[in-house]
Amino acid sequence: MADPSTSPPLTRSSVQEAHKLILPHIHKTPVLTNTTLSKLASTPRPAAELEGTPWAGRTPAKPVIRIWLKCENLQRIGAFKIRGAFHAIERLKRDKKWVESGGKEKGVVTHSSGNHAQALALAARENNIPAYIVMPDISAAPKIAATKGYGATVIFSGSTSVEREAAADKVIQDTGARLVPPYDHPDIILGQGTLGLELQDQVTEALASPSPPYSSLLPPTQSPRIGLNAIIAPCGGGGMLSGVALSCENTGIRVFGAEPNYEGADDATRGYYSGTRITMVKSLTIADGLRTPVGAYPWSIIYERRLVSGMYSVSEKEILAALRLVYERVKVVVEPSAVVGLAVALFNEDFRAMVEKEGGEEGWDLGVVFSGGNVSLEALGKLFST
Amino acid sequence: MADPSTSPPLTRSSVQEAHKLILPHIHKTPVLTNTTLSKLASTPRPAAELEGTPWAGRTPAKPVIRIWLKCENLQRIGAFKIRGAFHAIERLKRDKKWVESGGKEKGVVTHSSGNHAQALALAARENNIPAYIVMPDISAAPKIAATKGYGATVIFSGSTSVEREAAADKVIQDTGARLVPPYDHPDIILGQGTLGLELQDQVTEALASPSPPYSSLLPPTQSPRIGLNAIIAPCGGGGMLSGVALSCENTGIRVFGAEPNYEGADDATRGYYSGTRITMVKSLTIADGLRTPVGAYPWSIIYERRLVSGMYSVSEKEILAALRLVYERVKVVVEPSAVVGLAVALFNEDFRAMVEKEGGEEGWDLGVVFSGGNVSLEALGKLFST
Repeated sequence: MADPSTSPPLTRSSVQEAHKLILPHIHKTPVLTNTTLSKLASTPRPAAELEGTPWAGRTPAKPVIRIWLKCENLQRIGAFKIRGAFHAIERLKRDKKWVESGGKEKGVVTHSSGNHAQALALAARENNIPAYIVMPDISAAPKIAATKGYGATVIFSGSTSVEREAAADKVIQDTGARLVPPYDHPDIILGQGTLGLELQDQVTEALASPSPPYSSLLPPTQSPRIGLNAIIAPCGGGGMLSGVALSCENTGIRVFGAEPNYEGADDATRGYYSGTRITMVKSLTIADGLRTPVGAYPWSIIYERRLVSGMYSVSEKEILAALRLVYERVKVVVEPSAVVGLAVALFNEDFRAMVEKEGGEEGWDLGVVFSGGNVSLEALGKLFST
Repeated sequence: MADPSTSPPLTRSSVQEAHKLILPHIHKTPVLTNTTLSKLASTPRPAAELEGTPWAGRTPAKPVIRIWLKCENLQRIGAFKIRGAFHAIERLKRDKKWVESGGKEKGVVTHSSGNHAQALALAARENNIPAYIVMPDISAAPKIAATKGYGATVIFSGSTSVEREAAADKVIQDTGARLVPPYDHPDIILGQGTLGLELQDQVTEALASPSPPYSSLLPPTQSPRIGLNAIIAPCGGGGMLSGVALSCENTGIRVFGAEPNYEGADDATRGYYSGTRITMVKSLTIADGLRTPVGAYPWSIIYERRLVSGMYSVSEKEILAALRLVYERVKVVVEPSAVVGLAVALFNEDFRAMVEKEGGEEGWDLGVVFSGGNVSLEALGKLFST
């Protein structure tokens, strides 16, 4: 990875520059609207549903929320991670020292069993750069096959982070490959943030059309809508959330983060409201892409610069309910991690009360990021049979 | 339904007029590209795979096929049927006799247990017109609930076509409601054809962008691509296929139809090559939207006017293989009927040999219509567990 000290500044215009670099290599993913989901989000929850939740006894919130789904599950390799990976490679190719020291031949390395592994493998292959991926030896066979399918050399390690890092260090010593971390690096953050730029433009364009979506859901006195009011995105290591926050800097569009709260996976939420970044998470939430603590670079954007306006979390049951709605109503394949933002909009009464207060009768046009769709058909069957 | 004799002529410009009428009510669904699927379609099948098929012993074809997926599974109500339903209603609203005789108050009626039922229910509700839907009493509970959810009055009947038509006739006698058939009517055909116009424009637009999809898959001497070479679409009653054929009239874009061949569900294929429309089908193919014989109006376009250049069919196994690829690689929810066109492109050696011959080394940009995504999560689980 390029030396972070040589990375562009963490600003909206750097995200725009990143977008130019990666545009030939990625999909501009569709933004979907859905009347059923927006009506549901704009309907107060039955008081009975709040029993047994932290909001029991409270009057259900009455927000008006028009949902715009940014479908990064339809991105190449099935997740937004390809944006950061291509940006990291493009930045490396512009790093004279790396190129002159034979970097392109030595290759890149990461340790990941998830979407970042496949993303780096594909981005490297399309640039004829060798990629080494350290994966825990307990990784699922299809994930190993997919990563090898993109032409990477897979190196197996134990499953603790210490063992994985040791294996990656050994690859670096043996090959001279450059480490490309999954989220805690400016180039990765700027790459992921590009999805936020697209989402903003796509909504503005749709609202400028002769028949903009959701016109029938608006009060008659609605003022003209010209774009999004806010975006909510899942937060694992925080690379994507912080990138999206940068993409909205000085636009007036607010950005919120969403997490699972099972077994303490809401580390960023707890850190955000206590003022201290939490650096250790041990959760087996079904949102398996979000079991990671927030990285230092993302934290500086999310919390220290306050470019994220709030963090919210949801239960496993709420994630599953959102997941089912997406399959039945939106007709796209998503992994559980992808729907936590939607689950917050539908079920988190703190978020909903805030939108009611801030958005008033006209409500909000809310961008919701679907982060990825990499889930096996077998795992899916199990999720819905329980 | 408006008297067919008052319908616009069955031409491309009538499809364009229909598009203007329905545009405020429908989604302009996304067109997705997919490198993995296109590489697979452009790779000769292993000779061993052809054993036990009608092509055993033949040299596998070597077509070059770049796939453009028109995602009508992401359409409102989850299927293209909403296009025809809205067009039928818009045309009725312009029929003075119908309006002056109180047609809007008397309502519309159809017999369907599938996507047409939900489509008509929604189109009627958004126009404040009562809708009566005759459904077999053995229909799945979620389908009944969805149709009622769109505000329709559901009337139960026996499951034979005679019983269903009798029940619809009784509704007409009791209420004066107008019948809106699912496919065999010019207004329905013109409405469904609008997806073909969008697909043509969306591909042309994508090819004009600075980094058009699939550039890396082309031979270096490729002539400039300006749009689609062909479209393949599923054929049940033939309303959508014939509408798409009209949308391509005089454009040079060829149109092909795709069917399941299980238990004789390839009625349109057999009819097309024998010269006689087959009017009876009894098949339990998993592509349950395609168990219907081709209607007379569609037939006149598909066969008599030869606006469809060929019909191809696939086995249940091939449909399932395509279905799995779509879930794993494209990340969208499709019903089995939706993927028969893709299955033909991937697995039908007659189609593939034809593309090899016609498309040569440069190959074809092929539009593939995904017709719908209405499948229950439970049914899906069963499909992939067998």
